[in-house]
Amino acid sequence: MKKICIIGVGLIGGSVVRGLKQTKDVDLVTGYGKSEDTLIKAQELGVIDEYSLNIKDAVSGADMVIIATPVDSIEEVFSMIEPHTSEDTIITDVGSTKVSVIESAKSVFGEIPTRFVPAHPIAGKEKSGVESSDAELFNNKRVIITPQNNTDPDALQKVTSLWQSLGAIVETMSAQQHDDLLAMTSHLPHMLAFGLMDYLISNNPDAIDYAAGGFKDFSRIASGDSVMWRDICLNNAEEITKHIANYQKTLDKLSSLISAHKSKDIEKLFKDAKSARDKWLDN
Amino acid sequence: MKKICIIGVGLIGGSVVRGLKQTKDVDLVTGYGKSEDTLIKAQELGVIDEYSLNIKDAVSGADMVIIATPVDSIEEVFSMIEPHTSEDTIITDVGSTKVSVIESAKSVFGEIPTRFVPAHPIAGKEKSGVESSDAELFNNKRVIITPQNNTDPDALQKVTSLWQSLGAIVETMSAQQHDDLLAMTSHLPHMLAFGLMDYLISNNPDAIDYAAGGFKDFSRIASGDSVMWRDICLNNAEEITKHIANYQKTLDKLSSLISAHKSKDIEKLFKDAKSARDKWLDN
Repeated sequence: MKKICIIGVGLIGGSVVRGLKQTKDVDLVTGYGKSEDTLIKAQELGVIDEYSLNIKDAVSGADMVIIATPVDSIEEVFSMIEPHTSEDTIITDVGSTKVSVIESAKSVFGEIPTRFVPAHPIAGKEKSGVESSDAELFNNKRVIITPQNNTDPDALQKVTSLWQSLGAIVETMSAQQHDDLLAMTSHLPHMLAFGLMDYLISNNPDAIDYAAGGFKDFSRIASGDSVMWRDICLNNAEEITKHIANYQKTLDKLSSLISAHKSKDIEKLFKDAKSARDKWLDN
Repeated sequence: MKKICIIGVGLIGGSVVRGLKQTKDVDLVTGYGKSEDTLIKAQELGVIDEYSLNIKDAVSGADMVIIATPVDSIEEVFSMIEPHTSEDTIITDVGSTKVSVIESAKSVFGEIPTRFVPAHPIAGKEKSGVESSDAELFNNKRVIITPQNNTDPDALQKVTSLWQSLGAIVETMSAQQHDDLLAMTSHLPHMLAFGLMDYLISNNPDAIDYAAGGFKDFSRIASGDSVMWRDICLNNAEEITKHIANYQKTLDKLSSLISAHKSKDIEKLFKDAKSARDKWLDN
């Protein structure tokens, strides 16, 4: 590819283009973002070749536009790029939810562009920002692509190859399946951790002083960026609330077992939980 | 002290006596336990000076008996040592719950012995067993002591000094307060993590393949020993189920905010959660 435009040069966006520069599959990487300071830093770090604060200049002539902004701003980005993309421009994103992003594309473009390939790399770091970006971030990590019925096979292939060239394991599924799966494995645990902190603060703010090492690990994900997580909640509200409700049935069951002193059932539940986690770690 | 008897030479018991040997406050450490292999290993490692499989020999003449067995077996240990202790023998334990241990003491001894000092060090490691024991395990960690109205001040002072000599920060509170606090800061998070694993296994066993790094941290405490956690549940059932029920109200609140797209309230909850955790980490 001759030119790629990356919109949002943070941890994820920065890591994608750092990786791409290593593969030498792209001649020119242009950055666009809201903060010129970030773009200057990204250029100084060699993450991008150039930047523009003018969306037309940034996008024009790009073979691919990669949107790596928070999920709630993607609709706005679609509106900004829409006048400057052609039917040949591949558009892709890295948003944590997929149904809402696809709805945004439909709303802005009238219909979902055939060369729009929604994607979500399941990778991250505790620290955000372009300073933390890393060409190896996606190595052996899963990337879920959620193509539509009308998605152009060539565009799909190009986006798939891009992620594979960064070492990622690419899978495709429907946007609905993706949002359900991520609500379960990522959004729900985050809600439980944020909820636990809220519970402690609201009920006994001094209690936390007595927490031990396990609490530190358990609560780490409650240190996630509040705006990013707010946006994920707003964009995947239905799936998240569904999984919270279903999870509560599990808590009810466990609580009943404890109240009834069902010794064997409690032990079995804990043992199975431990086995499942240990097995997951081994893979 | 001339002789200490440690009953249960695992991670916690082993770490206590390793620490005590460093302070040189004890002439002889005798170990007692169910598994001779463990006792041999403990002796080889220099954790204990000698061991006995005969409880009378192990306990007789000890200035202090430290019970470091799983919380559910403490009543049985009380019954075993009762014939061999005098009114001068200080008895203490390291059990994770305190109300049930005190009830066991009352049930076995007829009344709570004045020289029984219930204690709980809030410290641990991922790996259990005497091999993992560490003289520094309690350094700068909290130890909660839950004296009764009739507790002998001299016994209380000796147990307090023991923990302080291992570098621990000793606090006293009622057994009821302890069990409530620990249910909140330790038992509840463990139930949430075990519950999450159970939820994933029961609903979509393949989903876990899509979990990312945050899940690894969050679920670490679901790898806890199933028998130990079963016993904690059985011995602190009332407090644990109370906190599960109250926590569910927090989940209900969060779920309602998400359903209603209460953007600002969601962000505030997450932000406050993050601040509280960051503040805790800084202390």
